[in-house]
Amino acid sequence: MKGKKFETDQMTLHKLFHPRSVALVGASANPLSGGYAYATHLTEDFRGEVYLINPNAEEILGRKAYPSLLAVPGPVDYLVSSVAADKVLPLLDDCAKKGVKIIHFFTARMSETGRSEGVKLEREITEKAKRLGIRFLGPNCMGVYNPRVGLTYGYWFPPEPGWVGGLFQSGGASTDFVHYGALRGLRFSQVVSYGNGADIEESELLEHFASDPETRVIAAYLEGVKDGKRLAQALARAAREKPVVVLKGGKGEAGSRSVLSHTASLAGREEIWRAVFRQGNVSEVGTLGELVDQVLAFSFLPGFSGRRVGIAGGGGGKSAISADLWEENGFILPDLPPVMREKLKEVASGVWDWLKNPVDLSILQDTPVLPEQLFAMMNVSGEFDVFVFNLTEDDPIPGEMWRLWAREQAGGVIRFRDESKRPVAAVVATGEVTSEQMREWRWGMIGEVRKQLIDAKIPVFSSPERAARAVFQISEYYRRRSIRT
Amino acid sequence: MKGKKFETDQMTLHKLFHPRSVALVGASANPLSGGYAYATHLTEDFRGEVYLINPNAEEILGRKAYPSLLAVPGPVDYLVSSVAADKVLPLLDDCAKKGVKIIHFFTARMSETGRSEGVKLEREITEKAKRLGIRFLGPNCMGVYNPRVGLTYGYWFPPEPGWVGGLFQSGGASTDFVHYGALRGLRFSQVVSYGNGADIEESELLEHFASDPETRVIAAYLEGVKDGKRLAQALARAAREKPVVVLKGGKGEAGSRSVLSHTASLAGREEIWRAVFRQGNVSEVGTLGELVDQVLAFSFLPGFSGRRVGIAGGGGGKSAISADLWEENGFILPDLPPVMREKLKEVASGVWDWLKNPVDLSILQDTPVLPEQLFAMMNVSGEFDVFVFNLTEDDPIPGEMWRLWAREQAGGVIRFRDESKRPVAAVVATGEVTSEQMREWRWGMIGEVRKQLIDAKIPVFSSPERAARAVFQISEYYRRRSIRT
Repeated sequence: MKGKKFETDQMTLHKLFHPRSVALVGASANPLSGGYAYATHLTEDFRGEVYLINPNAEEILGRKAYPSLLAVPGPVDYLVSSVAADKVLPLLDDCAKKGVKIIHFFTARMSETGRSEGVKLEREITEKAKRLGIRFLGPNCMGVYNPRVGLTYGYWFPPEPGWVGGLFQSGGASTDFVHYGALRGLRFSQVVSYGNGADIEESELLEHFASDPETRVIAAYLEGVKDGKRLAQALARAAREKPVVVLKGGKGEAGSRSVLSHTASLAGREEIWRAVFRQGNVSEVGTLGELVDQVLAFSFLPGFSGRRVGIAGGGGGKSAISADLWEENGFILPDLPPVMREKLKEVASGVWDWLKNPVDLSILQDTPVLPEQLFAMMNVSGEFDVFVFNLTEDDPIPGEMWRLWAREQAGGVIRFRDESKRPVAAVVATGEVTSEQMREWRWGMIGEVRKQLIDAKIPVFSSPERAARAVFQISEYYRRRSIRT
Repeated sequence: MKGKKFETDQMTLHKLFHPRSVALVGASANPLSGGYAYATHLTEDFRGEVYLINPNAEEILGRKAYPSLLAVPGPVDYLVSSVAADKVLPLLDDCAKKGVKIIHFFTARMSETGRSEGVKLEREITEKAKRLGIRFLGPNCMGVYNPRVGLTYGYWFPPEPGWVGGLFQSGGASTDFVHYGALRGLRFSQVVSYGNGADIEESELLEHFASDPETRVIAAYLEGVKDGKRLAQALARAAREKPVVVLKGGKGEAGSRSVLSHTASLAGREEIWRAVFRQGNVSEVGTLGELVDQVLAFSFLPGFSGRRVGIAGGGGGKSAISADLWEENGFILPDLPPVMREKLKEVASGVWDWLKNPVDLSILQDTPVLPEQLFAMMNVSGEFDVFVFNLTEDDPIPGEMWRLWAREQAGGVIRFRDESKRPVAAVVATGEVTSEQMREWRWGMIGEVRKQLIDAKIPVFSSPERAARAVFQISEYYRRRSIRT
C-alpha cells in the first residue's frame, strides 16, 4: 500500500513539473500583481494550453479571459491561484468539479502572518484539499520553474533547460539563485518555491529530485521543516544519488523570528541541523553566494577526494593571499616537485629554482611559460589533485596586450582541462561594476575572459576563499560517499 | 637629533610623493616592459618635468631620450629605475653626482629570489645609498600613485584625488586594491608599493600617512616586516589618528614560502600579528575584498559604536538570511518598537503587527511604505545604531516598473541618510557578469542603482555578510578609540 501511494505521489509530482494545461485564477492586467506576472509568463513561455480566469475581464494581455474555472473548455492539469485568501475554499470546490489535481497557491496571508485566522484558514484548506484528493504547493509561494515545458515564475529566467534541481522555501531566494547561478553558467532542470509547505513539502520534493533523471545536483533553501525524521532520511537518500547543497535560513534569533513571519515554520536549532547534514553527507553553505558557488563546483568539476592543490597565475601578492586562503580552507599546497623543477630549468632557466606553489606568473613574464604548461608539469608529477587558475589581472600590461595575454592564459587552461579531465577551477575577481563602468574597457575585458571560461564549463569564482570553500566540499562529499558505499 | 632626523625623513617622504621632476632610466618602447609602462604614465599623466633615459634610443613615445642621467638638463627630484639589477650600483654614483635624493627601484631580482647573489646585491645597494644620502623605495616594487601630481603606475587608475592612503608590499595587490576600490567609490590620496622595503619600509610609510592631512583612512598590505617593535608603535600611533585597515599576507605555511620568493620578508607568526593589531586598534581583514569593504565602510560611514541594526528591503528569504548573517557578525536586531508599530498601523494597516526586523518589503508591496519611511520610524524610536538597506531585486516585478521602484527605494535611502546623518549601508548583490551580460537589461539596471548609491557615498556591499563584517569593525574601532582617549 505504501509503495503504491509513493508511486501515485511521484506521478502527481511529475504532473506538478510537467503539466500540459495550466489555468490561472486571478489573472490580472495590473503589472505590479502576481496575477499579471503569471499571465505574462504563461502566455509568453508555456508550451501547453493556458487559460486565464477573471470574472471582471473579457480579455487579459490580448487573450480571452474566462469568468470561472468551470467555464474553461479543456481539461486543466495545474491551477495557479492568485486570488485573495478568502476565495480559496470555494475555489477548491470548483477544482473538484473540474478534476484539477494540482494547485499552486501564490495566494498568501495565511499561517505566515502568525495570526490565528490565517493559521486556521490554512488548516481548513489543507484538510479540504486532502478530502478532495487535490495536492497543492504553498500557500505563499512562487511555484514551479521548468524550462523544458516553458513553465516559469521569474522575469529573465534562462529559457534553456539544465541539470540543477532546486527546492526553495523562499521564492525570492529561488529567484536570486536562478539569476546569479545563470550568470555563472548554471542551468536548471526544475526549481520550485514551496512557501508554507502545507501539503507538498521539502521531503517529498527531495525524493522527487533524487530520482529525477534530469537533475544532477540538488540545491535547497530550507527555513523550517514539517517532519524532521522524514527530511533527514530524504536528505541522506538524495545525497547518496547526487550532491545535495543546503542553505539553512533562520538560524539565529532574529532570523527565527523573521522566518516565522515569512513561511510559518519553526526554524529549529542550529546544532541539530548541522548533525543531520553531516550524517546525510549534505554540503551545507552559509550564504546565497556560497549556494551558487557550491552548486557550480559540483556541476563543473569531476568527483575527487584529494586535498593537494596546484595554483598558477597572478602576481606575488595574489599568490601569497591565495596560498593563505586555500590552506585556511583545508588544502595542502605541495612544493613544486623536483621533476617539475628540471623541466622549468629548460623553459625558464633564470627563475626555475625560486618559483613556488602558487606560481607567481609575473616572475615568468619574460618566458613562454603559461598556466597551461605549469598545470601539465604538475599533473605529470602525480602530486596534485586539483588545479586552480588565478587570472592575472593585477599586472601592469597595456590594454590590447592584456586582452591577448589573458585570452591565451584562459584558452590554455581550458585545453589542459579538456585533455587531462582533471578538476580545474578559476578565480576571476568580479569588479562590482556600475552601469557606466560596464562600458569601460578593463571591465569589459575581464567579463570576456570570464565568459570564455564559463562557456567552457570551468567553474569561475570571484575570490580565492570562495573557490577554496566550494572546492573543498567537493572533495569532502566524494570522500565520504566512497567510504559509505 | 632624533627629532631632527625624523623631520628630514618626513621631508624626503614628502618629495617621494610630490616630486616636481622625474627621470626614468630604462625607458623603453617595448609594451610588455616596465620601462614602457612608466614612460607612458609619466608622459601622459605626470604634471612636472619628465626625462626619459635610454642610451640606445634617440626618442621614446615621441619624446627625446637622454643617453644618461648626467645628460639630463634640469634637476631631478625622483628617479625611477627600470634597468637590470647589475646596472644599479653604477647608477647610484650618477645619482650622487646629479643630486638625486630619491629613487624608486622597479628593478627586481634581488633578495626576493632567495639566491645569495641577489641578497648580497640588495645589501650592497642599501649600504651604498645610505653612504650617499640617497633614500629609495623597493627594490622590486611598483612605486607611487599620487593623483594630485599625476604620478601613477597602473593603467586605469582614477585621475581624481581622494582620501585613502595605501602602503602595499605587493604591487599587484595595490593595483587590485585601487581598481576594485575605485569601482566602489574610493579615491586615493597616495598609494605606495614598496616591495622588498630595503630602505623605506612600512613603519616610515605609516608615520607619513598618519600625519598626512590628505589621508583620512589608511590601508596596508603587509607580508613581512623589518622592525617589529617600530611597526607596532607606528600602527598604534596611526590608528589613534585615523582608521588603519591591514591585510596580512603569508600567514600559512605555503603563504610564508610564497612571500619569501615574493618580497624576501619573514612573514612572522599569525598570533603575534593578531596581538599587535588588537593592541593597536588596527582593523584586520582576511582578503583583498574585505580590505576594500573595510576601507569603504570607514570612508563613507560616520563613527559609531553601537550594535543595534535595523534592516529593510528584500523579500522573506533575503530577510531571514540577512538576519542570520548580521547576528553571526556580532549585531543585535531589535524587534520593531511599539512606537513604530503604532505608526505602521496607520500606513500599513493590513500587516503592521506581523512585520519584523529585517522588514520584508514584499509584505509591504500594496502600501506606500518604502525603506526610507521605515528607517525614519526606526530612527525616531532611538533604538537603532545603524541602518541597512537591502535592495529588493528578488521580487518578480516587470522591467520598467522595477527600475522606477528600485530608484525610488535607493533615492529615499539617500535622503534619509542626508537628513539624519546616521550610518547607512546598502547591500546590492553583484551579478558576476560577463561582457555579454553587461548589456542585458537587468544587470544594467542593478548597475544603475549601484551607481546612484555609490555616487551619494553610501557604502555598497555585495552581500550581507561582507557588509556586516565591515560595519562591525567600524563600531569596534570607535568603541575602542573612545575607551582609550
